[in-house]
Amino acid sequence: MDAILQDCLDRLDRLDVHTMYGGDFFLTWEKSDEELAAVFAVADALRNLRERNRSTRIFDSGLGVSLFRDNSTRTRFSFASACNLLGLAVQDLDEGKSQIAHGETVRETANMISFMADVIGIRDDMYIGKGNRYMHEVVDAVTQGYRDGVLEQKPTLVNLQCDIDHPTQCMADMLHIIHHFGGVEHLRGKKIAMTWAYSPSYGKPLSVPQGVIGLMTRFGMDVVLAHPEGYEVMPEVEAVARHNAAKSGGTFAKTHSMDEAFQNADIVYPKSWAPFAAMEERTQRYGRGDTEGIRALEKRLLAQNARHKDWCCTEARMKTTKNGAALYLHCLPADISGVSCAEGEVEASVFDRYRDPLYKEASYKPYIIAAMIFLAKVKNPQATLRALEERGAPRWFQK
Amino acid sequence: MDAILQDCLDRLDRLDVHTMYGGDFFLTWEKSDEELAAVFAVADALRNLRERNRSTRIFDSGLGVSLFRDNSTRTRFSFASACNLLGLAVQDLDEGKSQIAHGETVRETANMISFMADVIGIRDDMYIGKGNRYMHEVVDAVTQGYRDGVLEQKPTLVNLQCDIDHPTQCMADMLHIIHHFGGVEHLRGKKIAMTWAYSPSYGKPLSVPQGVIGLMTRFGMDVVLAHPEGYEVMPEVEAVARHNAAKSGGTFAKTHSMDEAFQNADIVYPKSWAPFAAMEERTQRYGRGDTEGIRALEKRLLAQNARHKDWCCTEARMKTTKNGAALYLHCLPADISGVSCAEGEVEASVFDRYRDPLYKEASYKPYIIAAMIFLAKVKNPQATLRALEERGAPRWFQK
Amino acid sequence: MDAILQDCLDRLDRLDVHTMYGGDFFLTWEKSDEELAAVFAVADALRNLRERNRSTRIFDSGLGVSLFRDNSTRTRFSFASACNLLGLAVQDLDEGKSQIAHGETVRETANMISFMADVIGIRDDMYIGKGNRYMHEVVDAVTQGYRDGVLEQKPTLVNLQCDIDHPTQCMADMLHIIHHFGGVEHLRGKKIAMTWAYSPSYGKPLSVPQGVIGLMTRFGMDVVLAHPEGYEVMPEVEAVARHNAAKSGGTFAKTHSMDEAFQNADIVYPKSWAPFAAMEERTQRYGRGDTEGIRALEKRLLAQNARHKDWCCTEARMKTTKNGAALYLHCLPADISGVSCAEGEVEASVFDRYRDPLYKEASYKPYIIAAMIFLAKVKNPQATLRALEERGAPRWFQK
Repeated sequence: MDAILQDCLDRLDRLDVHTMYGGDFFLTWEKSDEELAAVFAVADALRNLRERNRSTRIFDSGLGVSLFRDNSTRTRFSFASACNLLGLAVQDLDEGKSQIAHGETVRETANMISFMADVIGIRDDMYIGKGNRYMHEVVDAVTQGYRDGVLEQKPTLVNLQCDIDHPTQCMADMLHIIHHFGGVEHLRGKKIAMTWAYSPSYGKPLSVPQGVIGLMTRFGMDVVLAHPEGYEVMPEVEAVARHNAAKSGGTFAKTHSMDEAFQNADIVYPKSWAPFAAMEERTQRYGRGDTEGIRALEKRLLAQNARHKDWCCTEARMKTTKNGAALYLHCLPADISGVSCAEGEVEASVFDRYRDPLYKEASYKPYIIAAMIFLAKVKNPQATLRALEERGAPRWFQK
Repeated sequence: MDAILQDCLDRLDRLDVHTMYGGDFFLTWEKSDEELAAVFAVADALRNLRERNRSTRIFDSGLGVSLFRDNSTRTRFSFASACNLLGLAVQDLDEGKSQIAHGETVRETANMISFMADVIGIRDDMYIGKGNRYMHEVVDAVTQGYRDGVLEQKPTLVNLQCDIDHPTQCMADMLHIIHHFGGVEHLRGKKIAMTWAYSPSYGKPLSVPQGVIGLMTRFGMDVVLAHPEGYEVMPEVEAVARHNAAKSGGTFAKTHSMDEAFQNADIVYPKSWAPFAAMEERTQRYGRGDTEGIRALEKRLLAQNARHKDWCCTEARMKTTKNGAALYLHCLPADISGVSCAEGEVEASVFDRYRDPLYKEASYKPYIIAAMIFLAKVKNPQATLRALEERGAPRWFQK
Repeated sequence: MDAILQDCLDRLDRLDVHTMYGGDFFLTWEKSDEELAAVFAVADALRNLRERNRSTRIFDSGLGVSLFRDNSTRTRFSFASACNLLGLAVQDLDEGKSQIAHGETVRETANMISFMADVIGIRDDMYIGKGNRYMHEVVDAVTQGYRDGVLEQKPTLVNLQCDIDHPTQCMADMLHIIHHFGGVEHLRGKKIAMTWAYSPSYGKPLSVPQGVIGLMTRFGMDVVLAHPEGYEVMPEVEAVARHNAAKSGGTFAKTHSMDEAFQNADIVYPKSWAPFAAMEERTQRYGRGDTEGIRALEKRLLAQNARHKDWCCTEARMKTTKNGAALYLHCLPADISGVSCAEGEVEASVFDRYRDPLYKEASYKPYIIAAMIFLAKVKNPQATLRALEERGAPRWFQK
């Protein structure tokens, strides 16, 4: 048995994850520590199997349905990769092409697309109070459909980004951190700064900063959330972060100073987002069809952003981090000063120096998604991973 | 051997279906009773195998090409599911993205997409006299291509809805009826009402009512077609229905009274459609590029519809059916009064009560499509189904 | 062992192709004669295996990423077929749907889509000096990503048409020629006329004529490039053609007379294209956003084209070819006089007579693409092909 794989199996042996079978993945803070640890262990195991050319197909056929309500390259490819890795074909539910546009109810559509669906992945992050709720409606519908004998099985939902959390991104970020520091046991007392940064674009979702403070507070780290006044995130998620920090023996602090956040940080995550209150306002204006109000709001937000152009991840600030060498994170694409915009979230030389680790950070996402699916679809993950190893079918056949 | 599967195999043993190998599926009335019975038996068998976690892949690789000339969620997913169930990857021929827009002939395109195509599924239901003809042009082209040695095999065409028939829908409806009443032998003398219903939308295709009267008249049932004056369907299809009824020992009647149709009915299928003559006129006006005429026609049709708002599947009418509990059918999505529109085809409480059976009705469609493909691609369906059972490859692998 | 397959394996045994493993396919003239011979041999072998119902899947899972920057039916289907034949699922990178539109750099996107990509196929033929360069940027990015440990492997790039060459088309054309004349050894001294032809459409890419003279000059043939004055192709490619002809013992000549080109030709390839200088001008005007200048250029080009309506592949000209029966080639779709346009590249009766061979010509493309992928992904192609034969897994399973 390969040593890395054996380690993953050993980790799984110590975890109680029977609760995940048949489940869904909405928010990280709805999952137990053991469940999150299981996702990391299975992600590592699947990657190990693939990199040693072992087939990880657990599905001979079956569909992974994707619904993207916002543009996406990397999440789309990550979901497609994860489905493919497990043997599922991706079928996009394109609302433009489909009869959803004709006023179908969520309940009906959810069942109609699920007769042979094993997984449904949804990205719906634009409107506060909508995305996560929509995902729950879909899951309620297919759960009912399964109970009523309409569906042979309940497909598993994977939240590919909602208005509250971006669990596949943050779990990938976290697995990157774990590997960077050589294990989850080395994270206690590490300082991570989740900080707002200036971007010339408007209305970026809150799900990443919220997901980060909701997740990273669970590992005994000192999590600092930094942003200018007026860029508050959802108060409920801050409450989650405080609760997590208390429980994990870490801390959760807030500041309005980027400098303070960077000071001696082990990890920095500088990224733009829109104020929660503004996003709420926008959602309400959209609901009322108030186009003029939305345009005015957008103008106001851009002007508000422009007052904080000094919130940039500069070389000077990086020097103030632990040994001047904090791990720089971003969900990508970043707004890079002088590259993708005149002034942005990060200086080009900082971004360039961290390009490799950033790409590696992103590389965990397909495996995180695959692990979420795997744990929802396989009753005994250790035994099944072991069986995949023993089956020994090559992913890529050659003599 | 599983009892349900054994029953399917026994049914197939009694049928002569050698004619289906290498064939296509255009219209149900071009198929013999034995051929239709074979589709039902194979659909049941494939469902049984899948639900017992047996892989039904008969293709290790290969393409299912889909061409949708109208929006579609459920048929698109049904076709994708059927292809996936048998091991084919779906490749959409999107006319927007492709060079068809640049004036290619059907013959050329049909061959160009078929070098590795096992199946071609087409939905083309908008213009009278066009959809079915187009499908034949495609089949003629690939048949010629196969004969001339251009194609290694002739791909099988599945009609996913044309201007004349909607065979995958109506066969799914029928299999639902058969299971609901406990077998095809219990249908003799049952009354089914295919009736027009009011919808605020305009120009719905005729393929469902035509498909229903062309198919349901073959099982000894009493089929009633009801619609307001002026909503006639194609006379050729009415002739088919009369002929079928006479042959099967059932009846085919027409009425202009929804009440009369519902009276003592065992099954009701209330659904809006456009008048055949209007659809013909529209087709001609499109041909002439007469945009103004089309707009005028649309206005006229909506006004005409609005005179028949009383054609609704109400609770009161449902009470008049057999034991007040007729089986309610719809191809979905339905126009539900007070839900998807102010006044529509069906009252919300009726629709709600039948939600489960409606979803089950829809669940047969992927299996019907898969069965049509299977019978066109497999010379000995019984032996092959038996071999799939004996092969015992799991669809969903876990330990 | 099947005789055709054995012949393919024998041919491969005589070739040194170790250089192809891990490589890419940009331009045919960057490949050695042995490498091109290997592509032909593997294409023939894969076709033989498939036609004898042997599975040629070398991938149990994995992605083939496609990026089309221009409309395409046949190349899209050819790429999808090739990927499917080898076991890869196709994932389109649709720039409309993706965040590329948001200004991502090529380097980042290339890595983000490649975590599980085995192949990347790109069509980018619109702007002179851009398409091929873009493909190199993608390959440089993923090569770097692989070196840096971001990617588990370097995906293979297949040029599905760039501004310089159309290698999958021209290699398919060439394999068609080889089979038509009974083997590459019979081509010496054959005359092939790559000639411009009139089309009412504007701005057709140069990649086909350039690809043809860059490839066909390598087999000892007499290659003639014919076009009206002002329709010059890239001088660099003409230099390649001259060099190839000298080396292979053939000839490369230019003429401004279609009649002269057709005279006694064994093969004719009449096809419209835009002048290189005009394409360069267009590219520059696009770069400056000079919409008015582009419109003027277009008008000028159409007028210029219209002066050469006599450049048509007529029956009269076909009579002057070798025995009046030259092999007529086209990459399709052709502009056929009286069919797809009033006056075009070819007379309808000529096109009709060659329909079968034209479709056969097209049928090689999926196999050519699959062979390019195969040789980049398999270290020992002979052994692997032999193993596929011995594995004996059916592509299409039935009893």
